[in-house]
Amino acid sequence: MSANTTYSHVTAPTDFVEARGVRYAYRRFGTRIGTPLVLLPHFRAGMDHWDPLVTDGLASNRPVILFDNAGVASSSGETPDTFEAQADHAASFVEALDVPRVDVLGFSIGGYVAQAFTLRYPETVRRLILVGTAPRGGEQEGTHPDVPRVAQDPVLTREDFLFLFFAPSVASQAAGIAFWERRHRRTLDVDPPSSEQTMNAQTAAIGKWREQRGERFADLQQIKQPTLVVNGSHDIMVPTINSYILSQRIPDAQLILYPDSGHGSLFQYAELFVTHASRFLDAAVAFT
Amino acid sequence: MSANTTYSHVTAPTDFVEARGVRYAYRRFGTRIGTPLVLLPHFRAGMDHWDPLVTDGLASNRPVILFDNAGVASSSGETPDTFEAQADHAASFVEALDVPRVDVLGFSIGGYVAQAFTLRYPETVRRLILVGTAPRGGEQEGTHPDVPRVAQDPVLTREDFLFLFFAPSVASQAAGIAFWERRHRRTLDVDPPSSEQTMNAQTAAIGKWREQRGERFADLQQIKQPTLVVNGSHDIMVPTINSYILSQRIPDAQLILYPDSGHGSLFQYAELFVTHASRFLDAAVAFT
Repeated sequence: MSANTTYSHVTAPTDFVEARGVRYAYRRFGTRIGTPLVLLPHFRAGMDHWDPLVTDGLASNRPVILFDNAGVASSSGETPDTFEAQADHAASFVEALDVPRVDVLGFSIGGYVAQAFTLRYPETVRRLILVGTAPRGGEQEGTHPDVPRVAQDPVLTREDFLFLFFAPSVASQAAGIAFWERRHRRTLDVDPPSSEQTMNAQTAAIGKWREQRGERFADLQQIKQPTLVVNGSHDIMVPTINSYILSQRIPDAQLILYPDSGHGSLFQYAELFVTHASRFLDAAVAFT
Repeated sequence: MSANTTYSHVTAPTDFVEARGVRYAYRRFGTRIGTPLVLLPHFRAGMDHWDPLVTDGLASNRPVILFDNAGVASSSGETPDTFEAQADHAASFVEALDVPRVDVLGFSIGGYVAQAFTLRYPETVRRLILVGTAPRGGEQEGTHPDVPRVAQDPVLTREDFLFLFFAPSVASQAAGIAFWERRHRRTLDVDPPSSEQTMNAQTAAIGKWREQRGERFADLQQIKQPTLVVNGSHDIMVPTINSYILSQRIPDAQLILYPDSGHGSLFQYAELFVTHASRFLDAAVAFT
């Protein structure tokens, strides 16, 4: 790690900042200067659910900030049951850090929060990365019928993750096993699991996000930020066609779909994803 | 240009090789070693219809080969009226060059030839790049009604290209004007325009390509090569959804769609496209 970087995914201490009566847990690592990249995670996930190969790769040229939203894992408070309210918490957290402008990477339901955040706080977001996610009122066709049951298992096992996040092929499953090993490299100062309250509130928020409001996909036209949309070729949790729709409707969006992969494509193709995302974030003018 | 490169898009002399009674015109430039990348161009196009920023960018780490298929521009013979027969000519040309294995970049109808070439000569193709193209029996919805008329203008003007290859936005049109300037940098040893015979044969071939044969898209499963599929977000010649379909059906395919762009996205985002394509071609194991 170069001289101007500090900490890594495994070594960054969990820190806390207070706002709106919530004590938000977060970790910051990577370079000291540059626009920080805030990561918003998947259903029930906290700061330990990312892939160090992705977070440290992205952190090689920017500050990376992981945090637990209100009520999630190490943060206090209750998780609200809409992604708009969760986006308001994310904004309070960023404001409390005294960071004027951030890049946002939202993965899965974190991508719903990221869209709401960008729409509600357009001045705060410089660039947006949406991975394995969907617009409000998106397409459900292609969702595997076992997803809701498995995703709500009391404790998610490696086999649950291999089913939910990776394709059935030998190559994708092997990538999933490698991801699972990397994900558990941090063993000290880790998050507790998220509560049932968080799971239930996020489930309720998902239900509302799936409802259309007004003209379908009209909100997406209001996202003016350069946006990188990413998914695996065959996502059984958030069907891949939703990433195509996002890239068609957000005016300045690039789409990347990785081969033979599912919801966790950013973990399956960790190094390639870091290359693509870094190029997107680093360009002085987006898409040059 | 580094010591092991030779010639460039503008300086490469037009050379000729004979096979099956056809004298194929071609130009080779870039590095001396590495898997050559053969480029297959759009409707009516010869060797002068590429963007030097793209071809020289790709040539910085591989040999690049441009050629005129049978009957096209500087090549002798007649243009056949199926893409399968055009693929057979491409194979004869590659064999005559005594190159055992190539990468193939097919753009627009060149992508139809590239698919047929890969299916008919799977041992000859290492990796495949499909830009602004469609599978056999693809989707027509989204094609602008003026396309057939404009595309058959006796002489294609800059304004024709700006309409056909770029999005209506100020940014895309400006990129199109810059492309047009680059495309005309080569002024010596250039191709003559393609003949009416070529245009009519390619038009007939397009008609046949649009017909479904057997199970729709089943052919694509047989493309085993690592494949990069690229298009602009809103292609009015070959609707963008076809690139999504290609990436869904070819087993080992990555999709990239560029923002605010049309059929000529590789020219609009020349440097970014070269970065993405080079990463794809250079990786010892595809997609790592």
